[in-house]
Amino acid sequence: MATTQKSFAKGSSAPGPVPKGQIRLFSMRFCPFAQRTRLVLHAKGIKHETVNINLKDKPDWFLEKNPLGLVPTLETVNGQVIYESPITCEYLDEVYAEKKLLPSDPFEKAQQKMLLEHFSKVTPYFYKIPMGKKNGEDVSGLEAELKEKLSKLNEVLVNKKTKFFGGDSVTMIDYMMWPWFERMEMMELKHCLEGRAELKKWVELMLQDPTVKANMFSTDTYKAFYKTYMDGKPDYDYGL
Amino acid sequence: MATTQKSFAKGSSAPGPVPKGQIRLFSMRFCPFAQRTRLVLHAKGIKHETVNINLKDKPDWFLEKNPLGLVPTLETVNGQVIYESPITCEYLDEVYAEKKLLPSDPFEKAQQKMLLEHFSKVTPYFYKIPMGKKNGEDVSGLEAELKEKLSKLNEVLVNKKTKFFGGDSVTMIDYMMWPWFERMEMMELKHCLEGRAELKKWVELMLQDPTVKANMFSTDTYKAFYKTYMDGKPDYDYGL
Repeated sequence: MATTQKSFAKGSSAPGPVPKGQIRLFSMRFCPFAQRTRLVLHAKGIKHETVNINLKDKPDWFLEKNPLGLVPTLETVNGQVIYESPITCEYLDEVYAEKKLLPSDPFEKAQQKMLLEHFSKVTPYFYKIPMGKKNGEDVSGLEAELKEKLSKLNEVLVNKKTKFFGGDSVTMIDYMMWPWFERMEMMELKHCLEGRAELKKWVELMLQDPTVKANMFSTDTYKAFYKTYMDGKPDYDYGL
Repeated sequence: MATTQKSFAKGSSAPGPVPKGQIRLFSMRFCPFAQRTRLVLHAKGIKHETVNINLKDKPDWFLEKNPLGLVPTLETVNGQVIYESPITCEYLDEVYAEKKLLPSDPFEKAQQKMLLEHFSKVTPYFYKIPMGKKNGEDVSGLEAELKEKLSKLNEVLVNKKTKFFGGDSVTMIDYMMWPWFERMEMMELKHCLEGRAELKKWVELMLQDPTVKANMFSTDTYKAFYKTYMDGKPDYDYGL
């Protein structure tokens, strides 16, 4: 299985050409941004190959393909390279017609993008709060800010009166936001969901989604990886 | 003409419903982000009404429509509200079929979005450099960074061997980047184009585009507005 493959570091030989009829994902097993693309690949049933990258010690051949050295990065059989998680996901949704994840209505699509823009101001807290804690700082102010932003997400669900952020079934925006919620327990941030009933229910529903289930790690695994990460020596192959 | 309308401030009465068969743009005459949307509206020949907003003293009725209080914001006849400049532009391109500005090919579209992502790291220099100068700081380091980023844009044109960033005619990405180049002379940053021949040529070609021509201000007008802006008392109605 692709996600069990050890990461490629500097000095490794480059993988061969992208297998015919497939697309290649450069990923890191614990990266929430790359997980977005993994969720979309899985939800749409797209045949793909995963190449995990050692982000602390990137292979030269990877930097040649994407000088920014970021994951997720997609590579097509024609050698086309696509990066930035929302761009990779939209690309996949456009190229592969099966199970469209973005709404076809332009306003609904715009709504998902505006929500994603809002959410891009949420994700930094999932870095700042644990870092602050590690440094022995008082993170209560940061937690209050995070809670306020989560309240706004809760409000969206209350106003929409739907189970998910794009309607009563899982769509793109749910997968774009999910990876950070999956890590809340590990980061000891689950209490930030208290009093945000609709959002809490959304988390429970997402946990039942087959694609989410197939792409998640246990809180224990995340804890172990993040310990190595916070110590500055990320073990990208933890558990393999 | 819409762009000659004075700005609405706090205490003003709200404009009536969006005229039938039109779309409304909340704008500020000198805002480069709102200019993106104005360029797209013009290039596609979309019937629209412009409502200019006093960004220092926003009307309550505007904040009710968009709590973030940002321009550009679009409002449809159905009361749908769309904001964030790239989202408004893509929405307009999807809803109005005339003269598509985004490529239909998913990879070409992804390329434009990746380039826009790169460009989002360029725009802050157009604020930081003049601010630094005003404060009497040494901005040579910032200018060197800007030049490096402009070199990358130049490289894109060199590699593509096309006149514009999406091919040999103006497309979405050109309009997304243009507003900052229009302000380079006013900001005394034109020398940063030296040695970047393809990019310099692109600027010259853009200046001939009818949509660019119809939506630009003179360097003198920009200078006068930015003086009021840098002094903390922006005259949004300068020249009216």
